[in-house]
Amino acid sequence: MTYPKLVLSLPDWVDRLLAAWPAMLPRVEDRMRLAIALSRASMEHGGGPFGAAVFDLSTFRLVAPGVNLVIATRCSVAHAEVIAIGIAQQILGHFDLGAPALPPLELLSSTEPCLQCFGVIVSSGLRRLACGARTEDAEAIGFDEGGKPADWPDQLAGRGLTVAREVLRAEAAEVLAEYRRRGLPIYHVGRTGG
Amino acid sequence: MTYPKLVLSLPDWVDRLLAAWPAMLPRVEDRMRLAIALSRASMEHGGGPFGAAVFDLSTFRLVAPGVNLVIATRCSVAHAEVIAIGIAQQILGHFDLGAPALPPLELLSSTEPCLQCFGVIVSSGLRRLACGARTEDAEAIGFDEGGKPADWPDQLAGRGLTVAREVLRAEAAEVLAEYRRRGLPIYHVGRTGG
Repeated sequence: MTYPKLVLSLPDWVDRLLAAWPAMLPRVEDRMRLAIALSRASMEHGGGPFGAAVFDLSTFRLVAPGVNLVIATRCSVAHAEVIAIGIAQQILGHFDLGAPALPPLELLSSTEPCLQCFGVIVSSGLRRLACGARTEDAEAIGFDEGGKPADWPDQLAGRGLTVAREVLRAEAAEVLAEYRRRGLPIYHVGRTGG
Repeated sequence: MTYPKLVLSLPDWVDRLLAAWPAMLPRVEDRMRLAIALSRASMEHGGGPFGAAVFDLSTFRLVAPGVNLVIATRCSVAHAEVIAIGIAQQILGHFDLGAPALPPLELLSSTEPCLQCFGVIVSSGLRRLACGARTEDAEAIGFDEGGKPADWPDQLAGRGLTVAREVLRAEAAEVLAEYRRRGLPIYHVGRTGG
C-alpha cells in the first residue's frame, strides 16, 4: 500500500495515570473526575485540554480512555471522544456501541462535544453521554467548537441518548482556564499559520 | 500501553485501482469519477458504498483516497471522508488542511457528508468540497445520515468553504442503488442486532 496508515495511539502516560485509580467507579462524578484528570494530564503533556472515557455501566469499569491527540498525531479528527469511542470499539469488537449484545456504555467528556464529536457520538450508537464543562467554557478560552446546533442535547435525546450536563462543570472548566493562563496554543483550522 | 491502537488502513485493492488512473485530473468531474470508482470498488470488496479523495488543486494530483472502513475496522468513525482527510493530514504533516503553508486542497465525496463528516470537514480546515450523490440518495436506500442541518452547505459557506453539489450525481447515486439491489447490509447504529 502506497499510502500511510492512520494510527491513533494513546500516549504511555495514560497507563500510569490510570494505575492510580480504583478499578470500579460507580458514581458518575467519579467517572467524570477521571475524564477531567485525563484532560489535565493531556495539557501537562502538551496536548489539548480535553479528556474522555467510555465506561461499562454494568460493571462500572473503564472500557477505554481518550485524550485529545490533534497536535501529537497531526490529525484533526483525533479529539478525546473519537479516541475513547474508537478504542472502545476495538476492544468490544463492534462498530455499534448501542448494539444489544454489548453492556450499557457511557461516554464521559470533560467538555461538551464540538460539532464534529456531536456527529461522531450519533454515528457511534452510544446511548449515554455525560459532560463536564460547557461549550461556552471552551469558547471562552478561544476554542472554536464548530457551530453545533443550539438544541444538540434535544437532538441526541430524540435519538434515544441520555445526556447529563454540567457534571463537575467547575472542575472541568478550571482545566480550560488553566490552559489559557499558561498561554498554551488555541488552534484554529483554516486560519493557522503553521 | 494497555489499550490497543486505533489503526485505520486502506485496503490493498486501492493501490491497484489507482494504478489505472491518470496522475493528473484537472477536471472536477474526473476527480469525482475517481471518488465514485472508489465507492463502487468498496462495495465490491464488502465495504460501504462510499468513496472520497483529497486532491491538490495546484497540481491536480491525488493526495489521499478514502473508502468506508466501518465494517472492516469495526470503527464507526471510519467513513470515507475521515480516511481521506486523516491520511492527507499524515502525508502533508499538518492537522489543518486550510493552513497557508499547504496547497489548495479539495475533498471529493461520492455522497454528501453525513452529520459526522459535516463536523469532521469543519474541523479539518478544508476549504473546498465537491459532492456526488445527495444525502437523500443515501437515505433512499436506508442509510441514516445523522440528522444534518438542512442548511449545511450554507453553514460551510459561512465558514469560507466552497461547496459543489451534484457533481455526477446520477453516476454516484447508481452505486447506492446497486448496493440496495444486491441486498447488501444497511447498518444502523443503536438498532443493529449484531
